[in-house]
Amino acid sequence: MKKKKKVNAAILIIGNEILSGRTQDKNIVFITNWLNASCGITVSEVRIIPDVEKTIVKNIRLLSKNYNYVFTTGGIGPTHDDITAISISKAFRVKYGYHPEAYKILENYYGKKKFNDGRKKMAKMPITAKLIHNPSSAAPGFITNNVISLPGVPSILNSMIENCKKYLVKGVKVHSKTINLFTVESNISKQLGEIQNKYKKLVDIGSYPFFRLGKIGVSVVSRSTSKMYLNNVQKDLMKFIKIKKVKILKI
Amino acid sequence: MKKKKKVNAAILIIGNEILSGRTQDKNIVFITNWLNASCGITVSEVRIIPDVEKTIVKNIRLLSKNYNYVFTTGGIGPTHDDITAISISKAFRVKYGYHPEAYKILENYYGKKKFNDGRKKMAKMPITAKLIHNPSSAAPGFITNNVISLPGVPSILNSMIENCKKYLVKGVKVHSKTINLFTVESNISKQLGEIQNKYKKLVDIGSYPFFRLGKIGVSVVSRSTSKMYLNNVQKDLMKFIKIKKVKILKI
Repeated sequence: MKKKKKVNAAILIIGNEILSGRTQDKNIVFITNWLNASCGITVSEVRIIPDVEKTIVKNIRLLSKNYNYVFTTGGIGPTHDDITAISISKAFRVKYGYHPEAYKILENYYGKKKFNDGRKKMAKMPITAKLIHNPSSAAPGFITNNVISLPGVPSILNSMIENCKKYLVKGVKVHSKTINLFTVESNISKQLGEIQNKYKKLVDIGSYPFFRLGKIGVSVVSRSTSKMYLNNVQKDLMKFIKIKKVKILKI
Repeated sequence: MKKKKKVNAAILIIGNEILSGRTQDKNIVFITNWLNASCGITVSEVRIIPDVEKTIVKNIRLLSKNYNYVFTTGGIGPTHDDITAISISKAFRVKYGYHPEAYKILENYYGKKKFNDGRKKMAKMPITAKLIHNPSSAAPGFITNNVISLPGVPSILNSMIENCKKYLVKGVKVHSKTINLFTVESNISKQLGEIQNKYKKLVDIGSYPFFRLGKIGVSVVSRSTSKMYLNNVQKDLMKFIKIKKVKILKI
C-alpha cells in the first residue's frame, strides 16, 4: 500500500463584512473539519483580508506557492465589491472573461430574459478555470491552478463543498482524542509537558480551559495521523490522571 | 482641532484549537468591534496560525512592521503549548524571563504555597513588557513594542480589553449604515456600482445576501469615517430604491 502524504491548505477569507466585525465567520470551522474528515487535508493557515484587489493578488500568489491548496471564500457575487475572480485572474496572469460553460449554466438557470448584467458577471472568471457545481443558486465556484474559490454565504458554500472533492489529492487524516477534566491547567501542566516531550512530532497535545456548569475544567486534546501513538498518549494521560486523582468529566 | 489619523491593526490568532476547526473563534468579532467603537482603530488583516514558534516569530515581525498595532490571542497560559510569550521575545530579541511585576501579581493571587511552576510560567515573558491587568484570573496580558498579547479564552479576554485602551493611540472611527432590502443582488448591482463609483475612496459600499423568514434579501452596508458622505450615500440609495420599488425590510 502506498503511504499517503501530508497535504495542507490555507483558507483566504475575502470580505470587509468579516474584517469589520459585522459578520461572524462560519466557514473556517466548516471547511477545516470537512477537509480533514473527507480528504485528509490539514489547514495550516487562515487569513482574513479586505476587498482590495492588490491585497487579494498578493495573498493568492503567496499562499498558492506555500500550500498545496488555497480555499477562498467570498467576493464571487454580482456586485461591484465582488472582485475575487478578477483578482485571481491577475494573480495568475490568466485571461478574465466570460467562462463559456459558466455562462451557459447561468443563462439556463435564469432564462435569457432575466439574465441581466449583474448575473452575467458571475460567469466572468479566469476563462481556463474548472467549475464547481452549485446546487443552491447555480453560480459556480471555480478552480484556478491550486486555488479553489467558493462563495461567502455559508449555506451555499456548504452545499457545494462535496463537489470540490474530485479535484483534490487526498492526504493522511488527522485523528484526535479529547479528555475533559475537572481541574486547572497549572495542576497538570508538568505531566502534559512530559508526555508531549515523549511523543515529540508524533502527537500534538493541546490543553484548553473551559467553564461549564459553574466549574472550571480543561480539555486535553491529542491529535495525530497515527491511531497507535494516539492510543499510547491516551494511556499515559490516564495513568497520571489516576495518580493525581483528577475527576474526569468526559472522554 | 487636530484631525485624527487613520490607525490600523492586525489580529494574530495563535492556536491549533482554532486552526483545527475544533473551536469556533469568537475573539475576532469582539476585538474588531471594540477597537473601532472605543479607539477608532480599523482591523486590516487577521491571521490564524498554529502553535509553532518559527511561524509565530515570522508573523509577529511582519505584522508589527506593517500595522500600527498587532493583537495576539492565545498561547499565554501555563502549559507546554503556550509559547506566545517566548516567541514574541525572540521576534524582538528581548530577554525572556520572569517579569518582576507579573511574578508579584501571580504570587499574591495564588499565595506562596500554591504558586507552582505552571503558574510561575505565566509570569515569564519579554521582561521589558508593559502589563495589561486581568481582573478575571490575574495572569496579565502584556505589550511588547506595538504587539498586545491577550489570552484566548473569550470571557477573560473580554474582561481585559478596556485595560488596553490607555496604551493605544486613538484614530478616526468608521461609521456605518445598513439598509436591509427584500430583493436580490443582481437587481441592484448596477446602481450600487454607480453610487460606489461616485463616492470612490470616501465611502465603502458592501452588499451581502441574507435569508430571513423564508425570503431572500440583501444588506447594503455603507462604511465611512465621514458621517456627511455616509448620509449622502444613504440619500442616493433611497432614491433608486424608491424608483425601483424595492421593499425595505429595515433601515
